[in-house]
Amino acid sequence: MKIKTLLFLYLAATLPNYTFSQSEDEAMLRKTFNEALTNGQSYQMLDYLSNNIGARLSGSPEAAAAVEWSRQQMMRLGFDTVYLQEVMVPHWVRGKKEVARIVNAKSGTIDLKVCALGNSVGTGPDGLAASVVEVKNFDELKNLGRKNVEGKIVFYNRPMDPTLINTFGAYGGAVDQRVNGPSEAARLGAKGVIVRSMASNNDDIPHTGTLVYDESAGRIPAIAVSTNDANLLSRLLKDDANLKVYMETHCEMLPDVLSYNVIGEMKGNRYPNEYIVVGGHLDSWDVGDGSHDDGAGCVQSIEAIRILMTLGYKPQRTLRAVMFMNEENGLRGGLKYAAQATANKETHIAAIESDRGGFTPKGFTISGSEKAKSALMSWKPLFAPYDIYDFGKPGGGADIGPLGESGTALIGFLPDSQRYFTLHHTDADTFETVDKRELEMGAGSMAALVYLIDKYGMDGKN
Amino acid sequence: MKIKTLLFLYLAATLPNYTFSQSEDEAMLRKTFNEALTNGQSYQMLDYLSNNIGARLSGSPEAAAAVEWSRQQMMRLGFDTVYLQEVMVPHWVRGKKEVARIVNAKSGTIDLKVCALGNSVGTGPDGLAASVVEVKNFDELKNLGRKNVEGKIVFYNRPMDPTLINTFGAYGGAVDQRVNGPSEAARLGAKGVIVRSMASNNDDIPHTGTLVYDESAGRIPAIAVSTNDANLLSRLLKDDANLKVYMETHCEMLPDVLSYNVIGEMKGNRYPNEYIVVGGHLDSWDVGDGSHDDGAGCVQSIEAIRILMTLGYKPQRTLRAVMFMNEENGLRGGLKYAAQATANKETHIAAIESDRGGFTPKGFTISGSEKAKSALMSWKPLFAPYDIYDFGKPGGGADIGPLGESGTALIGFLPDSQRYFTLHHTDADTFETVDKRELEMGAGSMAALVYLIDKYGMDGKN
Repeated sequence: MKIKTLLFLYLAATLPNYTFSQSEDEAMLRKTFNEALTNGQSYQMLDYLSNNIGARLSGSPEAAAAVEWSRQQMMRLGFDTVYLQEVMVPHWVRGKKEVARIVNAKSGTIDLKVCALGNSVGTGPDGLAASVVEVKNFDELKNLGRKNVEGKIVFYNRPMDPTLINTFGAYGGAVDQRVNGPSEAARLGAKGVIVRSMASNNDDIPHTGTLVYDESAGRIPAIAVSTNDANLLSRLLKDDANLKVYMETHCEMLPDVLSYNVIGEMKGNRYPNEYIVVGGHLDSWDVGDGSHDDGAGCVQSIEAIRILMTLGYKPQRTLRAVMFMNEENGLRGGLKYAAQATANKETHIAAIESDRGGFTPKGFTISGSEKAKSALMSWKPLFAPYDIYDFGKPGGGADIGPLGESGTALIGFLPDSQRYFTLHHTDADTFETVDKRELEMGAGSMAALVYLIDKYGMDGKN
Repeated sequence: MKIKTLLFLYLAATLPNYTFSQSEDEAMLRKTFNEALTNGQSYQMLDYLSNNIGARLSGSPEAAAAVEWSRQQMMRLGFDTVYLQEVMVPHWVRGKKEVARIVNAKSGTIDLKVCALGNSVGTGPDGLAASVVEVKNFDELKNLGRKNVEGKIVFYNRPMDPTLINTFGAYGGAVDQRVNGPSEAARLGAKGVIVRSMASNNDDIPHTGTLVYDESAGRIPAIAVSTNDANLLSRLLKDDANLKVYMETHCEMLPDVLSYNVIGEMKGNRYPNEYIVVGGHLDSWDVGDGSHDDGAGCVQSIEAIRILMTLGYKPQRTLRAVMFMNEENGLRGGLKYAAQATANKETHIAAIESDRGGFTPKGFTISGSEKAKSALMSWKPLFAPYDIYDFGKPGGGADIGPLGESGTALIGFLPDSQRYFTLHHTDADTFETVDKRELEMGAGSMAALVYLIDKYGMDGKN
């Protein structure tokens, strides 16, 4: 049929400029997934990291333990080289458990489920008590003006939008309240800030996370409140605009601490100075055990390279599993890694980050050149047998972001996002919430992608 | 560009034979998902069904409570008609908790985590003790022959294949051991059967599920053992082929009991005698609380119609939410529903079943005519904004299966399958394992599909 022939020619003309051995690659992907699902080590590694080491905030003894643990893991697994990369990290500590309560004539005293925001100053033992002004966004705050804000606690209460299917979009649409809210409130003379937890559900668990102070505005203490208690506070404020909240936090920022990125290599036999990074961040918040954020990404990264080693794959480029330090409250590890790569004149052709939880993989996002996007898109059909279908949306990862300046293709591992913001940055982010197969499927998909990038590059040349 | 024009014509020619108002449908789908995610009632309904009523095996008082509860729910929500459809169901009871233990000289006595298979006869209080012969499949069993099987306990120990991405495929590849294994063993004179749990993971939780006796072979007692204990038993058998297992179960089959399918209707205003069914099964096993299997499918089905009612949608056809009774150990509800539909000369154009857990939706399977498949495929692009992409693989659902004989398009709700077989038919199938957004996304997708089927039919005519 003539039209079909034309169609074929048309489609052939639009295909990327390189070819690959479809059946060899199909077989290799089958092997990577089979190895992940049959002899996978990611789950047992995460078990140790989560249950023996646990939460590992930058600068903590547990973060140091996680550094040594991941070094030993990669040694044990026979990586060619394993080394530590020094990085000075912030050392914020929560101190004694924070408290907050509503005090008003009608309801009496009601304890709120709260936790201090990361990097926040503390109120100290005297605490602070003030009346509360609720806003949904910075425009509302500015319209209230200094006369209505000064001396008060600003309560940011804009929920994540539940109608956004990608919950990261909903998080992105709300998180300015947490990151910049304290300084915006301080600028108008507020004494403290309460932020509705960045959560996709309503429950009693407060979600921590970092704030960023604008030094020109002065530093005021800030806490997150559970979504249920945010709703309660909002309701009570409608009855009694004069109710007061008492909050007491003991957090403080100590001097920087020496810590490390942990790097394990599998040397390339053809282009050893071309690097492919696969990584996650080793630090977590000081709540839960950081299994999804980002223990999962760390063990998947180690596992991706273990799988290729176990299958006897000999890479052309040098493959690196990188455990970045201090993503949560500073990004010092990611910045240091990129600076060192530049100083060492290393060519990083691609970096993959897994930092969206250990859930069923859907695909990979990318930020990079058109050629890099085409390369990624050309591999999409190979992932179809694994129900991995979502390729090419924009995005990379926080830790690998700084590599983008030198033209590295930045690739984000993209798992299902529906559950993530019920546990992100909370006591509920624990090993029990990770499903073994889901975690392993992700590791298999990352191994597969590393293989394809190593074999074909990101620019269609080889 | 000429080739592009030809391409366009070619693609246009291959499109299904009917058109739809894309923008109106896009808007309607957006509304169904928004309603599900913003004002959804599926999660609170499931909370009641799971936590107040709990496990509800056919014939149990809890199954009767679930019938009355779902009737009341659909009344409360303003369905046009709600009624019960009588169906006689088997009444199998587990009785006193079963036990099993390994007894051998070297290891002494080791308790096994087991549960009787549904519909199994019991050993009675005297129990049974016998040596054990392990096989992986029926061929192995037959090769052993009567001389090696008679008087023994047959231990089926073939795991689900972890490399199959769709875990239902792995389940389908192993479940013959549970369903037919007891009779195959009895045929060779075995006294009892132990089946490795149908589980995708290794843990300490036994998975029940139905067996089907072949009456010509005689009935012997059968239990499922946790995957960890299956591995243990297999290991110990290698050391000591003469070890014995003692098993004691108290289950029995009582006389049939009167129960009901529960049906709620939203009357069609143009073709009231054309029906679209959306359903799940109300019964569960007597372990856990049946939240995923299949409380989720029940509340999603009610919710799908509630969403359309709340949005003010006026259906052309009559929409029915059907809570089928006795899927787990008899399928009497599904058989009765189809027989009654035939007797009443009702035209069922499509039936959707949700019975694969309340996980993130991926798409819909279909068994039906080519026209019906084309109709479903033509709607696929409308679901892309919701990350629902997997349409048209073969499959329907157990309860709606009997409707297939009269040409009804059978459609299966297809969620992510990775976690299902860690909890299926176990004490671990509880409300806490259901994620609210995942459940709601499924309900929204089902409402959307009901709308499209109602508007366009399944045969391209209107």
